[in-house]
Amino acid sequence: MEQYPDSIRRLIRNLAKLPGVGEKTAERLAIHILRRPVAEARDLAESITTVKEKVRLCTRCFGLSDGALCRYCQDSGRNERLLCVVEQPADMIAIEKSGAFNGLYHILGGALAPMEGVGPDDLRLNELLARVRNREVDEIILATGTGVEGETTAGYIARQLADTGVRLSRIASGVPVGGDLKYVDKNTLKCALDGRHAL
Amino acid sequence: MEQYPDSIRRLIRNLAKLPGVGEKTAERLAIHILRRPVAEARDLAESITTVKEKVRLCTRCFGLSDGALCRYCQDSGRNERLLCVVEQPADMIAIEKSGAFNGLYHILGGALAPMEGVGPDDLRLNELLARVRNREVDEIILATGTGVEGETTAGYIARQLADTGVRLSRIASGVPVGGDLKYVDKNTLKCALDGRHAL
Repeated sequence: MEQYPDSIRRLIRNLAKLPGVGEKTAERLAIHILRRPVAEARDLAESITTVKEKVRLCTRCFGLSDGALCRYCQDSGRNERLLCVVEQPADMIAIEKSGAFNGLYHILGGALAPMEGVGPDDLRLNELLARVRNREVDEIILATGTGVEGETTAGYIARQLADTGVRLSRIASGVPVGGDLKYVDKNTLKCALDGRHAL
Repeated sequence: MEQYPDSIRRLIRNLAKLPGVGEKTAERLAIHILRRPVAEARDLAESITTVKEKVRLCTRCFGLSDGALCRYCQDSGRNERLLCVVEQPADMIAIEKSGAFNGLYHILGGALAPMEGVGPDDLRLNELLARVRNREVDEIILATGTGVEGETTAGYIARQLADTGVRLSRIASGVPVGGDLKYVDKNTLKCALDGRHAL
């Protein structure tokens, strides 16, 4: 690496911090960037800073958003009485890609994991309860992962919401047990949403 | 992709332009960048723009440089009477990594390829002749590729420099025939440099 001018070395070092990018790949990417037009490199650089400046969490569902409310919470074409509760924004993206859901979301920000010190106060459970108590919602699909933590979280939420009168369901066992929602294919997710069962 | 906010989509699109990065990988990299501290993302973005602003070609050897002269042309510890002629900056980097050469470089910017319309005027041959005629050089190692184009280029340069009195040599056949210098391992490059033969 010391063979390169300082500015290239700095770029290689920074690129090598990306996941799955070793020094060899970082070198190749740096040389590629060096060869592309200035406008293209500037566009890449700007999109990196912009994403950090603009992306925040939707104030309603806590999904990724460029503004106060995300595109789904702003979309009047969606069924806002139906809520899908997921652990992470990536899970929401996976469900959206399946095209099988037309309601709104609530992103918890994780799952209950007592062994790792993640308790109810670390998730956006109060915010979920508030949405239910404000009578914003008729039905909730619990789409947390199907591993121990996801099931525990779903069970906990079901107990918390038991006396609220909201209809509760859990995604079907189409999702492989122990699996991570964001790696599941579209059709399995579709099955899981269609085959949800009442709790 | 349309599931993401605009700023993330833009970043994914730009990352997917990098070589070897498909949309899935671009998504993963974008989410990674989103999760890292602002300072780290800004550093990456800045290093991309800086590399485009600062890196130019050394006015003497045409290698990559942050200033008018590259680190090698500025280094008084190197044998400046010995010149290694290569096709591309990446070839120079590969030779430097071998640690087997302590002279200076001349980067042609390519190899003769009549079929693709690359003739002598498209390479930095006049600049090489000027360095020889200005009596800057005693010996030249021709380290163009060992494929047809590299051999043709080496032969052409040898004929051009025949009456200048400069000592000429060609890297040894340690480099696999038809190979590309920047992919050759250090030891093979070392052999090739040590075993060079007079022309």
